[in-house]
Amino acid sequence: MPLSFQILATGANTGRARRGRLTTPHGAVETPAFMPVGTLGAVKGITPQELAAAGASVMLSNLYHLALRPGVDAIERLGGIHAFTGWRGPILTDSGGFQVFSLEGLRKVDDGGVSFRSHLDGSPLRFTPEGVVNLKERMGVDVAMVLDECPPWPIERSAAEASWRRTLAWAQSSREAWRGNGGGLFGIVQGSVFPDLRQRAAEELSQMDFDGYAIGGVSVGEPGHDRRAVVEWTAPALPEGKPRYLMGVGYPEDILHAVSQGVDLFDCVLPARNARHGVLFTRGGVLRIKNARFKEDPRPIDPECGCPACARTSRAFLHHLTRAGELTAAVLATLHNLRFYLDFMGEIRQAIELGTFEDLAARLASSSEEPASGLEPLAPVTFDPNEQVRS
Amino acid sequence: MPLSFQILATGANTGRARRGRLTTPHGAVETPAFMPVGTLGAVKGITPQELAAAGASVMLSNLYHLALRPGVDAIERLGGIHAFTGWRGPILTDSGGFQVFSLEGLRKVDDGGVSFRSHLDGSPLRFTPEGVVNLKERMGVDVAMVLDECPPWPIERSAAEASWRRTLAWAQSSREAWRGNGGGLFGIVQGSVFPDLRQRAAEELSQMDFDGYAIGGVSVGEPGHDRRAVVEWTAPALPEGKPRYLMGVGYPEDILHAVSQGVDLFDCVLPARNARHGVLFTRGGVLRIKNARFKEDPRPIDPECGCPACARTSRAFLHHLTRAGELTAAVLATLHNLRFYLDFMGEIRQAIELGTFEDLAARLASSSEEPASGLEPLAPVTFDPNEQVRS
Repeated sequence: MPLSFQILATGANTGRARRGRLTTPHGAVETPAFMPVGTLGAVKGITPQELAAAGASVMLSNLYHLALRPGVDAIERLGGIHAFTGWRGPILTDSGGFQVFSLEGLRKVDDGGVSFRSHLDGSPLRFTPEGVVNLKERMGVDVAMVLDECPPWPIERSAAEASWRRTLAWAQSSREAWRGNGGGLFGIVQGSVFPDLRQRAAEELSQMDFDGYAIGGVSVGEPGHDRRAVVEWTAPALPEGKPRYLMGVGYPEDILHAVSQGVDLFDCVLPARNARHGVLFTRGGVLRIKNARFKEDPRPIDPECGCPACARTSRAFLHHLTRAGELTAAVLATLHNLRFYLDFMGEIRQAIELGTFEDLAARLASSSEEPASGLEPLAPVTFDPNEQVRS
Repeated sequence: MPLSFQILATGANTGRARRGRLTTPHGAVETPAFMPVGTLGAVKGITPQELAAAGASVMLSNLYHLALRPGVDAIERLGGIHAFTGWRGPILTDSGGFQVFSLEGLRKVDDGGVSFRSHLDGSPLRFTPEGVVNLKERMGVDVAMVLDECPPWPIERSAAEASWRRTLAWAQSSREAWRGNGGGLFGIVQGSVFPDLRQRAAEELSQMDFDGYAIGGVSVGEPGHDRRAVVEWTAPALPEGKPRYLMGVGYPEDILHAVSQGVDLFDCVLPARNARHGVLFTRGGVLRIKNARFKEDPRPIDPECGCPACARTSRAFLHHLTRAGELTAAVLATLHNLRFYLDFMGEIRQAIELGTFEDLAARLASSSEEPASGLEPLAPVTFDPNEQVRS
């Protein structure tokens, strides 16, 4: 069964925002949606059941990591990626372009693909557009991303253009290799911060007729205004009736902006990674739970949240466990931050339906605590296999 | 409300085993029971909700750790240990005798108590029998353990006797200081591997009329036959109508033996600590999940287990996550091992009721995989604040 995408509502006062539904072989995803990142098949510290309970409807995993370990052969023999991970909902897999192109000195790109060495054991590997599509079909993913080249920021126009051209050629090869006997294939728009490259890529990819379209090459260290500009140039140039996915983004403010431009899907390691560092998202802004002011704070992290942490434990207890470096701190904080993001997407969907999108944006801007955007810039292009922003 | 203990059944063919119920201010504990260890207030990697879902009815925490951080004042202001940790069932707190006496060079014991330096910041601290009782009353624990001296193994008779005498005097001081306005106070039998010391301590403590009695000073590196001998000398000398608690023990075989001698309560970090090292308990014996033979094993860890890991994921997935050092591996494995221990206690309780205790022992002995007792000796006296056997 291929993918299908319906637009359910485009309310008044919501800009280009759409309320949609992406139907996949493993269930429907109500959009706009956030896809928690389970790079190796599991969100760090979270069971598949807890992920579902938090409200996730789709998980993102990474072909690069899974192909290295345990390998696609093993996953195929074990019945595919759903049987392997225990996650029963839809799974989208990124190809690892971001990871491979972060392996400075360990990879060599040519027009046919990219050769690189495993960051685990140095063994030589090669990804080609056709090969990646085949590996994803064998794993049984619901949404496969094409292999792309994710250039760093900043980049010279000439280098960006060469990379962009190759990514478009790879997209064509991927599209031709895709047999479409399950799930769907998304193209990826690159072009760095050059509006004409972004728009031409959007047009050329549209003509290749993918099941959805991603905006890649952001969250690589660029300033927020550049990231927002890329979204504003690109999203409107993509086909109206297909899902749009902004890769590796981001903070709630970034998500809200992108939704207003007509983006439907998001992924980011920020909620989970920040959780492991004691940085908690709340409706009032961000809490750095290690701060001494939380030592005897009896309130839940966020009084409006229904996550397992907020249902049972206090800021004081999270402060205590986080300071002590206890595993449970990471688990509770991750459960909370994921729930926060997933609830936030629910509020966005409702606001589109009700035409109250502007109220939501205003509320987010008036958070009394530290705004999330003050936290840190989105991560630059560095590759830590367990900590990357784009999984 | 003080504690109460009822013996519900002492079946045929069960030796001295008893099926009981310990009623506390925060609910009943069906015995024999295993108490998962939440040293700092949470079992490592597990939310309070998951701990309850695994079947735990009582959690063990450690005064030594909580007094150092966040401090009893903070816990009291936050509404007591239950409000602080979010664990709504009974809580037993050990005093930290094991930890304090493991701080070689950092502690000085005298007849009035023990002075030591915090392992966190070196600040000077002192525990006295009366002070410890008071701290526990302020935290609102359901079962308070007296301050005791936990000698190493092996130990000379003369040194053991001096320590034993001090522990008995401290027990008397603790008993007198205990106001009994909530929960209960347990005495602790010491005496190393000297049968007369163990038996005399049991008798003297019995006369002090505690709410329960513990066998301490085991799981400190002694051979299994010494540990079993200590249980055989001591348990029958304790009052029939009060709960008996074997501290820091242990493997399923040790628990079954102690139950046959009339022990009711157990705690041990082994299920959780082993889980974090990829060692999984099953009805068929122990699995070391990192072993290559599990790479493509599609079976659940234990086909008879209903834990979240076994319900959804395979040995192959646990193998993958464990090898990758993923947090979720520790979480899933801990959920499994705790459920295994808690299910095992349920089987013990049922076997006592049905008079099939010997069958259970025979089944455990015939496990086809590596028996748990082959894993490693119970940990010797070393102090790693996050990894000790006796929390």
